[in-house]
Amino acid sequence: MATPNISMTHASIPSTVSITATNERGETVDVEISGEHPLTLYFDKKELLTLMTLGAQPEALALGWLRNQRLVKSAEEIAAIHVDWETESVAVSSRQLQETGVTVWENSEKEARLNKKTTTSGCGQGTVFGDLMEDLDQVQLSNAHGISQEVLYEVMDRVRKHESIYKQAGAVHGCALCSNSGDSRGDILLFVEDVGRHNAVDAIAGQMWIHGLQGDDKIFYTTGRLTSEMVIKCAQMGIPVLVSRSGLTQMGYEIAKKLGITMIGRCQGKHYLLYTGQHRFNTLEFGQFA
Amino acid sequence: MATPNISMTHASIPSTVSITATNERGETVDVEISGEHPLTLYFDKKELLTLMTLGAQPEALALGWLRNQRLVKSAEEIAAIHVDWETESVAVSSRQLQETGVTVWENSEKEARLNKKTTTSGCGQGTVFGDLMEDLDQVQLSNAHGISQEVLYEVMDRVRKHESIYKQAGAVHGCALCSNSGDSRGDILLFVEDVGRHNAVDAIAGQMWIHGLQGDDKIFYTTGRLTSEMVIKCAQMGIPVLVSRSGLTQMGYEIAKKLGITMIGRCQGKHYLLYTGQHRFNTLEFGQFA
Repeated sequence: MATPNISMTHASIPSTVSITATNERGETVDVEISGEHPLTLYFDKKELLTLMTLGAQPEALALGWLRNQRLVKSAEEIAAIHVDWETESVAVSSRQLQETGVTVWENSEKEARLNKKTTTSGCGQGTVFGDLMEDLDQVQLSNAHGISQEVLYEVMDRVRKHESIYKQAGAVHGCALCSNSGDSRGDILLFVEDVGRHNAVDAIAGQMWIHGLQGDDKIFYTTGRLTSEMVIKCAQMGIPVLVSRSGLTQMGYEIAKKLGITMIGRCQGKHYLLYTGQHRFNTLEFGQFA
Repeated sequence: MATPNISMTHASIPSTVSITATNERGETVDVEISGEHPLTLYFDKKELLTLMTLGAQPEALALGWLRNQRLVKSAEEIAAIHVDWETESVAVSSRQLQETGVTVWENSEKEARLNKKTTTSGCGQGTVFGDLMEDLDQVQLSNAHGISQEVLYEVMDRVRKHESIYKQAGAVHGCALCSNSGDSRGDILLFVEDVGRHNAVDAIAGQMWIHGLQGDDKIFYTTGRLTSEMVIKCAQMGIPVLVSRSGLTQMGYEIAKKLGITMIGRCQGKHYLLYTGQHRFNTLEFGQFA
């Protein structure tokens, strides 16, 4: 997968701001908090939604959102992603619009998908669900790259040591895309934090397209819970291994089981729980590091 | 505020299910996980959205969602809330529909509000934002009930000791409505958990209407982060004191400051940070329990 030729801004903004608070001893203290900025997404001149974001990777977030909503099928469809913080907006333009002057919305299927979006939810509330379920039957996750306990511990260790906004300011979720092949096995390839865990996973999806990365030989790590949406997005990105510090919900479990994704949660210290997709886990190594 | 006369089901479902997982020693273990069920909300026969919920308080969730979206101005507008898990739906009917046969949707303002909803977001993604901001200028939070460090510690202690799905299964957020007046000061009046923190706060909003509770002499506790939406919903419910175990985001801070809400975060053990609304905090008691 080649890196696509997209005209892009690189408009990341500072991730933390400093405020003062009063602690339990009545002392005034300086506190770093996570930035949170509205960013209204336009695709071929149509306003889609306003995302609340940390603003670290707005271009990847916009691209990944369109990808994970499956409004765009490949990065090649996109000509430009321009973020303007003055107007708190990101304008994404299709290659079709650039070349023919015709917007993607003249395609009625996209319009229908967008309308479906508005009446469904996930993450508890508000985000897309029914829509994401649609194409799941077509998802085939690769079995070519298993994961061993050793690599899992490597991923957990690297994520723990990674510099993060979370350590400075809290109140964000992080996602990492890690290698699961070759000499780089266990390495963090992409790391994104955002105020919402859905933004973080969408920004990873965008980065994967920007850098031409496939999902089959990767491990996806999230600090967030393993809800239905997290599992679905991971599967849509073609990543067969999903790892989290947190636990899972019933729908997340059921969908993971159905998809055969290897899902590992409650990763803390040397502890973890392997919930689904045991066939990719190298059981010979169980207990080696425990 | 009297308890409204609403015809309601009481269709809560078990909050956890048991699954098996494999731990780091290769042992098969039984694990409790949080339930997560789609629940499609219909209001006067119009399908609004599908919520993913734990299902503990579906009627209150539906009512509170309508309240917090300000599609309903008072509980008196509602005649019935019927949950049917067979069809995974909750049907809310207005008194207007019952009495005149005319749905609330013939009121174009509601329709417009609903359409606005679909293009905005919060919580990172997908939930309503622009919409919620609209009436904030009209919000006046009471200064009649201050909070002392002693009461704050009482609230933190009671929430910590409260029986919860979180302790059993994790992967849920909890909210508590606590008293801030009279002999019950510091007591938990309502406690709701759900897979999304927005569902939990909406269910509290619904319960407040069902039980005829005002917000001015209450404290709102959440395990979730203090994002813009959490602050806005708390203010819309008329609750002047917002407490969280977690931290805050920039928008949450800015809106709390603007509204003059007393916002306290990072509540752990005897530690906390008072971010905004210092005028309601009894500073004489600082350090008394530290």
